[in-house]
Amino acid sequence: MSGWDDDRGARATWSGLVEPGDVVAGALVEQLGAWDALQWVRQAAGEVAEAHWRGLEERCGALPPQVRARIARAVTRWSGRLPDVDPARSHDLLERLGGVLLVPSDPRWPTGLEVLGPESPFCLWVRGADDLRQVLGRSVAVVGSRAATTYGERVAFDLADGLTRRDVCVVSGGAYGIDAAAHRAAAASDRPTVVVLAGGVDRAYPAGNARLLESVVSSGGALMSEVPPQSLPTKSRFLQRNRLIAGVARATVVVEAAWRSGAMSTAHHAARMLRPVGAVPGPVTSAASAGCHRLLREGVAVCVTDVDEVSELAGLTGWAALSEAERAADAGARRDTDHLDPVARLVLDALPRRTAVDVERVASAAGVTGREASAALGLLELDGRVVRRGNQWLLTRMSES
Amino acid sequence: MSGWDDDRGARATWSGLVEPGDVVAGALVEQLGAWDALQWVRQAAGEVAEAHWRGLEERCGALPPQVRARIARAVTRWSGRLPDVDPARSHDLLERLGGVLLVPSDPRWPTGLEVLGPESPFCLWVRGADDLRQVLGRSVAVVGSRAATTYGERVAFDLADGLTRRDVCVVSGGAYGIDAAAHRAAAASDRPTVVVLAGGVDRAYPAGNARLLESVVSSGGALMSEVPPQSLPTKSRFLQRNRLIAGVARATVVVEAAWRSGAMSTAHHAARMLRPVGAVPGPVTSAASAGCHRLLREGVAVCVTDVDEVSELAGLTGWAALSEAERAADAGARRDTDHLDPVARLVLDALPRRTAVDVERVASAAGVTGREASAALGLLELDGRVVRRGNQWLLTRMSES
Repeated sequence: MSGWDDDRGARATWSGLVEPGDVVAGALVEQLGAWDALQWVRQAAGEVAEAHWRGLEERCGALPPQVRARIARAVTRWSGRLPDVDPARSHDLLERLGGVLLVPSDPRWPTGLEVLGPESPFCLWVRGADDLRQVLGRSVAVVGSRAATTYGERVAFDLADGLTRRDVCVVSGGAYGIDAAAHRAAAASDRPTVVVLAGGVDRAYPAGNARLLESVVSSGGALMSEVPPQSLPTKSRFLQRNRLIAGVARATVVVEAAWRSGAMSTAHHAARMLRPVGAVPGPVTSAASAGCHRLLREGVAVCVTDVDEVSELAGLTGWAALSEAERAADAGARRDTDHLDPVARLVLDALPRRTAVDVERVASAAGVTGREASAALGLLELDGRVVRRGNQWLLTRMSES
Repeated sequence: MSGWDDDRGARATWSGLVEPGDVVAGALVEQLGAWDALQWVRQAAGEVAEAHWRGLEERCGALPPQVRARIARAVTRWSGRLPDVDPARSHDLLERLGGVLLVPSDPRWPTGLEVLGPESPFCLWVRGADDLRQVLGRSVAVVGSRAATTYGERVAFDLADGLTRRDVCVVSGGAYGIDAAAHRAAAASDRPTVVVLAGGVDRAYPAGNARLLESVVSSGGALMSEVPPQSLPTKSRFLQRNRLIAGVARATVVVEAAWRSGAMSTAHHAARMLRPVGAVPGPVTSAASAGCHRLLREGVAVCVTDVDEVSELAGLTGWAALSEAERAADAGARRDTDHLDPVARLVLDALPRRTAVDVERVASAAGVTGREASAALGLLELDGRVVRRGNQWLLTRMSES
């Protein structure tokens, strides 16, 4: 374990030692820090129960007695498992796949997970794009049933495609059906999408999506998991995985979900975190949409039917809804007109698109004198916003944007 | 006009004189009563403007000046049209079709329209079941687009069929598409449904639904309209008709509606009247469901997907959701257990369904002594709730219900 005797190593260890979302271990780590907590587990295993309990009382006095009691009961189990956890080996496996291990202190750690408190992941094992904070800055989770219909897969693909075109990263669980359709839309246009896996990032699960998961990595996206490489995707890990999907995305949209399904749990996680939740309606005759309709009826989700409504849900309206390219263009245009004097702005607004006009026309349309118009046009010409054609004036492409 | 010189005749006259929902005429009638208001219009036509205006000020002082001014302006138009309105002839036409004219003072006048205030209908021209208060006592409006899809028509039929089986009267507008499917479901099981028409009840509109409208009458339902027989269904009358659909039903459900459609206006009328509004979702790829999704997004409607949810929406849950036959059976069963003493009830609850058991088993399951159990079983036998099979006891069918 050389090189692993620090917070990062301790977090990697914790991630292999306890199950995701273990609120008891989480509380201890929150209280003592990952490294001290781990040291305490190591020592506690050798001590008599009474001394161990006293030490816990002293150091974790801020925790409620029930939580301390649960920690005391868990410590033997943890220390018993400790010899089997090898974070260095897990990290080697990750590095061989070009991955990185992120911990909360890393500037690349995604925002949004703080709200999970003691249920936060100890660390994230990541393959592909490693700056999750940047990649997930504008993100929407698109989730749904594995047993999706053609309708659901089409809607998921179209929504994810539309979001991708607006530079919004689509987050999902990499499963068959809705998840796969959503990731596929992003990967198809070579844009990042993030797959939150229930097992290790070295395992393609489900196996049938192996190529899709590789294409996610190669198209600038990422696979992430809170359990170390080689961990199996168990049922409880799937359920806990859903809290991470909801946690890293600005909003969660359920495209198709049966009455009870994992996507419903993701929606409820998002709602508990006070994140916006959307549900896509479908035919009432389709069992695959029953969960969505339930979310709508119960007021957990808002009805969303297209990418505009999803953008609105995620608060990505107006300026925020624009893609990076659009924002850059818009910012340029704003800067350019911000410094103009009022007369120049009137003149600029008075110029017709694609038609050259003379000074008199411009002056009369702008409601300024011919002299004012001439002066303003001269300045706008220097700015590259208008050009002269003989004695007529024309907007440049820059001003048309 | 002999026999028509009363409130009923005056209301019939007003219904032919002004357009449905005319709030100016409605305010005058509310203020003076239908007969006095009509007399005043007749006199005002012969008077000079000044005297007429003074009379209005004296008699309608409670109305805001703007409303009085609008009445003053309208009176010439009304008095000019008066000679063309012949309520006796309209009534003859109605009677020949076996119909009746209802006015608000009639005990058969439906409840729920009071909320319309000066926009209330003056009277209702009715064919078929004439006791609208009774027929519409448990009613739900099922409305939607004429340009419905197969999906929408199927859902409308299924919902209306389910409601009908619970003795809920389905109200709609008799149009093609959703309306027709809803009426058809009720008529198919020979149960009452109410068609609110925009034109006269003697006119089958649309003509293609003529047979359906006749079957509504013959299956115990009704056609109703606020305009006299022979009136044409104009566009504005269609829009005003929608307020009546919303007004007479306990709740309104929109099955399919394009972004702008008459059904949307019915939903908004219902919402303004604080009646429950439901919308049935559909594929987001179907323009026919766009209006429903809009109602869901805007919080005007609740998502409803089956007859249970519609019943819940209309407040017809539990006892109220049962059909008459079910309620009668249930009432009998309740009476039977209400008078039982506590031990007998414990014993009754302890008896398994469809299996005979001996006294000891019953006593131990009920937590009473063998003697108490025996005595209770004897009483229950007298009640016809249990029968003896040798030394074992069995629930009768009556107790199983």
